[in-house]
Amino acid sequence: MCQLLGMNCNTPTDIVFSFEGFRRRAGLTDCHSDGFGIAFFEGKGVRIFRDNQAAHSSPIADCVKQYHIKSFNVIAHIRKATQGEVNIENTHPFIRELWGQNWVFAHNGNLQSIPLPRNALFYPIGDTDSESAFCYMASELKMRFTQKPTKSELFEAIKEITHEIVKGGTFNFILSNGEWMIAHCSTNLHYLTRKAPFGKAQRIDDDGVIDFNDHAKAGDKVTIITTFPLTKDEVWTKMERGGFVFFQQGEKIDEVLGKKGESIDDGTLGYQKCA
Amino acid sequence: MCQLLGMNCNTPTDIVFSFEGFRRRAGLTDCHSDGFGIAFFEGKGVRIFRDNQAAHSSPIADCVKQYHIKSFNVIAHIRKATQGEVNIENTHPFIRELWGQNWVFAHNGNLQSIPLPRNALFYPIGDTDSESAFCYMASELKMRFTQKPTKSELFEAIKEITHEIVKGGTFNFILSNGEWMIAHCSTNLHYLTRKAPFGKAQRIDDDGVIDFNDHAKAGDKVTIITTFPLTKDEVWTKMERGGFVFFQQGEKIDEVLGKKGESIDDGTLGYQKCA
Repeated sequence: MCQLLGMNCNTPTDIVFSFEGFRRRAGLTDCHSDGFGIAFFEGKGVRIFRDNQAAHSSPIADCVKQYHIKSFNVIAHIRKATQGEVNIENTHPFIRELWGQNWVFAHNGNLQSIPLPRNALFYPIGDTDSESAFCYMASELKMRFTQKPTKSELFEAIKEITHEIVKGGTFNFILSNGEWMIAHCSTNLHYLTRKAPFGKAQRIDDDGVIDFNDHAKAGDKVTIITTFPLTKDEVWTKMERGGFVFFQQGEKIDEVLGKKGESIDDGTLGYQKCA
Repeated sequence: MCQLLGMNCNTPTDIVFSFEGFRRRAGLTDCHSDGFGIAFFEGKGVRIFRDNQAAHSSPIADCVKQYHIKSFNVIAHIRKATQGEVNIENTHPFIRELWGQNWVFAHNGNLQSIPLPRNALFYPIGDTDSESAFCYMASELKMRFTQKPTKSELFEAIKEITHEIVKGGTFNFILSNGEWMIAHCSTNLHYLTRKAPFGKAQRIDDDGVIDFNDHAKAGDKVTIITTFPLTKDEVWTKMERGGFVFFQQGEKIDEVLGKKGESIDDGTLGYQKCA
């Protein structure tokens, strides 16, 4: 399995405080050491960094830390390989162009099967279940809509396509086109929104502390989405199984509650570290 | 205008000696300072680094230098903006997935017009002539071949599509799918192949010296393609205008000689530094 990290904001924000805790789970506080990736939207463009080394010690991750890139939308992933070798082509997040926008996707879970697209417009480059599922989703979206549809049409279609994919297994994912971010929970996904009044937070993985008052302005809104909470003194919302949350400008704009029993319990409910 | 750098090898090779000279042209020895990008194929995957800062001083370029990534195929680009703002989405090289492979493209030149694809299967994300031309080429290829064709079919199609695009202006480009690399020359493009017996080389831009005997094995073959030569004591082949050269495993495998008068002389023949 793997872990996911997403950030959606209404102001360009530096993700380093969260990423520094998250990357420790790739070899220090947990075992998700089979490569990592992080994608930063910048305007319509994306900076994407990948390595097949463990994020906690990767020089590419050190570079990301030092550069303090500010972004409205970030998706990161630390990998514990289940399907596919440890190499760059199997490293999340995956990216495709759809209607002239970058679409960025990362997955946590394991899919035993993936539906065949009616017309494969996108093909996986590596050999993970995750990239195949993303290509299925992108192909289906492009077949349904020759031009970019409205946000509500997109959300509705993504829900329908997800319901097809989730029949094959566990499918926690974060997806963004740089305008909004969608999180879907099969087993484990948590989020919180930081806004005024700001306080302090202490990281779980190394006790690093931040006072957001030193960094944020009054109107700032920053949502963090992650497999398991990254801080010990903030209130994280655990997503329901089968649920979707849609974020834009740092806030939840829509939600679909989960239905019990819809998803497959693969034994990863609750934080179980690698043995 | 911009400058291009490509490398195609039969053994994973570190491009830092060439890149360190090349990146000086982005702000020190020349003015191509409007961002840079470099893509390294690694297996079927690609590591791609971009910055909207000048390559000579970019911390992302420093990171690339320090990491000494070895690759069979590398494409890099330093930008002097002609069309489109200085931002990440307008930064070469551009990348698209075609038949389950990464296709990486960088362009030097200026196109006044680009043909409309019969069916736009790929759309530009930014607003450069370069990305539009690449999307036209990728759309045309995907329309002609529902599955990946043979190498010779591909080369023939790329030549035909290039002949359409070049009607619109100057179109020097380097393109790779990780298996081979194609260079097309409208005005300026040079290459050389390093193989045994290896010698020394001195960079033009900062007099840095390397002895390839210290780095290469007997059977190694490394081709470097670049807008203007990077070393002063090696014999570079200047490509003919309108010509194509196809490289694989570090060597020229096919060539189409240019025809005089086929390309547009936009005044950049011969190395003219920015004023």
